[in-house]
Amino acid sequence: MTFPDRITSIQGSIMQYIGGIDIGGTKMAVVIADSDGPLLRLTEPTAKEGSSRAPADQAIRMLRQACEQAGVPFSELKTVGVSSCGPFIKQNGLIELRTQNICGGIGNRGDLPNDWQTVPLEAVLREQFTNVHIENDCVAALAAERAFGALQGSDHCAYVTWSTGVGFGLCVDGVMLRGKNGNAGHAGHMLLSEQSLAQCGCGNIGDVEALASGRNLEIQHGRSAEELFNAVKDGDVKAHAAVIHAAQWFGRALYNVTATLDLQAFVIGGSIWHHHGDWLEPIVKNEICSRLPPLTAGVQLLRPALDAYVADIGALYLAMPPAWIGNWRVHALWQRIGDIETV
Amino acid sequence: MTFPDRITSIQGSIMQYIGGIDIGGTKMAVVIADSDGPLLRLTEPTAKEGSSRAPADQAIRMLRQACEQAGVPFSELKTVGVSSCGPFIKQNGLIELRTQNICGGIGNRGDLPNDWQTVPLEAVLREQFTNVHIENDCVAALAAERAFGALQGSDHCAYVTWSTGVGFGLCVDGVMLRGKNGNAGHAGHMLLSEQSLAQCGCGNIGDVEALASGRNLEIQHGRSAEELFNAVKDGDVKAHAAVIHAAQWFGRALYNVTATLDLQAFVIGGSIWHHHGDWLEPIVKNEICSRLPPLTAGVQLLRPALDAYVADIGALYLAMPPAWIGNWRVHALWQRIGDIETV
Repeated sequence: MTFPDRITSIQGSIMQYIGGIDIGGTKMAVVIADSDGPLLRLTEPTAKEGSSRAPADQAIRMLRQACEQAGVPFSELKTVGVSSCGPFIKQNGLIELRTQNICGGIGNRGDLPNDWQTVPLEAVLREQFTNVHIENDCVAALAAERAFGALQGSDHCAYVTWSTGVGFGLCVDGVMLRGKNGNAGHAGHMLLSEQSLAQCGCGNIGDVEALASGRNLEIQHGRSAEELFNAVKDGDVKAHAAVIHAAQWFGRALYNVTATLDLQAFVIGGSIWHHHGDWLEPIVKNEICSRLPPLTAGVQLLRPALDAYVADIGALYLAMPPAWIGNWRVHALWQRIGDIETV
Repeated sequence: MTFPDRITSIQGSIMQYIGGIDIGGTKMAVVIADSDGPLLRLTEPTAKEGSSRAPADQAIRMLRQACEQAGVPFSELKTVGVSSCGPFIKQNGLIELRTQNICGGIGNRGDLPNDWQTVPLEAVLREQFTNVHIENDCVAALAAERAFGALQGSDHCAYVTWSTGVGFGLCVDGVMLRGKNGNAGHAGHMLLSEQSLAQCGCGNIGDVEALASGRNLEIQHGRSAEELFNAVKDGDVKAHAAVIHAAQWFGRALYNVTATLDLQAFVIGGSIWHHHGDWLEPIVKNEICSRLPPLTAGVQLLRPALDAYVADIGALYLAMPPAWIGNWRVHALWQRIGDIETV
């Protein structure tokens, strides 16, 4: 698809480009954009072999390739935003990834083809780009939903993903929370149960991810989350009980975050909620609103407006010149990411 | 005690006074101060009879009395800071208290001599004072420790009290968290256990307060926290186990808050920690630092520097002209509150 209204000529230094990088445990996506919206998007499996620089080098290579394909001079791409899985640590003030699904040298996963302790993400990106803005993927998603989506005008809110894992991006008093290493929002590793034997990938027993995440539902019940939910449809009573229980734990986590931060709204993303949120919502809402009325009364559960592209738009938003934001919002330019070529 | 260096003459509009109000479930304290430090402090049991205005009217009357005793014209007191127990709700944008220990019309306490639903705190104080700054008591304590105490220079931190109840004041990225009704920090009502039958005053079963607060230790074990800790000293094995268990729950709560907000330091106040923190600290620290190293490594547990007067100093700090702060910090003027007359 082409955009007849797009200004394709480069007008010297006036035209600006930005890059967005979305780093997941299995997939890497990059997207380039200008003031009129996203231009081109590429995806690949996340690099996990060779030196620990590999994922960062991969992102640079993919952005170069995206620029070539879009006819954008790579040298003009000076600013990138990154939405990445965490957790992060800082080395000399620069963010490195310490992610169990990417770094084979940590945790107890034997299936990764590397022994990386961390990925030096920010240092490598800064070799190429002048401005690098990195946030946890749920923080970036929250930024996108606050800028363009369901959380516009909400000052006390969170983005939550319920999918393979459970993660949060948090905003209180109109300010997004980062924390000492940019790891605020790891409430998926909050302990909820002393009775369950469910173990999280992080080693915790009885945290939110252990009790409710897709990965751990599979470990607990021997069926993938999808199989489990399909069985519910077929009237499987055990599967139904397992899913209800997971939704209750997920709701308790949202209650705990509400009590801790006095929030007013959650946008819930992730594949489990995307497919089953309609009938799970009353269960989750009851876990929140049946407790501590001065904090929970009126708390809203919302659907993400940016949905499948929330991470990419979040990454772009982090890199975006403030002057673009109004135009992107009014004309919903972020929606064009659904139409541009993805290779 | 008198201060020979105090300027006691009122120099027209140059001389300024501020008032601090500390509202607890059982005790009300007021203190007045000028740029050279606290001048006079009064305390009374918190008013719980008559109209629901009573506690707010009491604070005004006590401040008038304090001014009279200190030779300060009450009409010159235009700014007050308030450190109050919560939770709060807002009516037309003004803070009202919805506190179980003060309002007899909520919860299931039959021992209060009123049927108040809320106390209209801010509206009544604004009838008398031009500037009114109200915060949850743990938020005010956090402000005080960040301004004058153990958390100077700390951007990712919390004040926690472990006493009759358990409450938090939270700061992330150098910004203190308030939330939609000023109730951020109610993590004492975070659910931790699905097995325990311990019930909190708020109605929750298995939240932090139900598991670890002084009030609920007494309900669970039939002995006050003080009696329980005395029994530990006398070699009572059951009391020892109960106290260790409570410290583990308290530590889990601190872990959950650390994972949620990526904090670097906690100041722990309250009577239980004041008396027993030395030997409970390794238990609490282990609950935090044995999990999720990228978030918990190096987290510090600190003692409050302002101790018994943290609420009063917090209330004064909320009302303080910015120009006073440096002088109060350098000369530790807040310490004078320990020397001035308290009636």
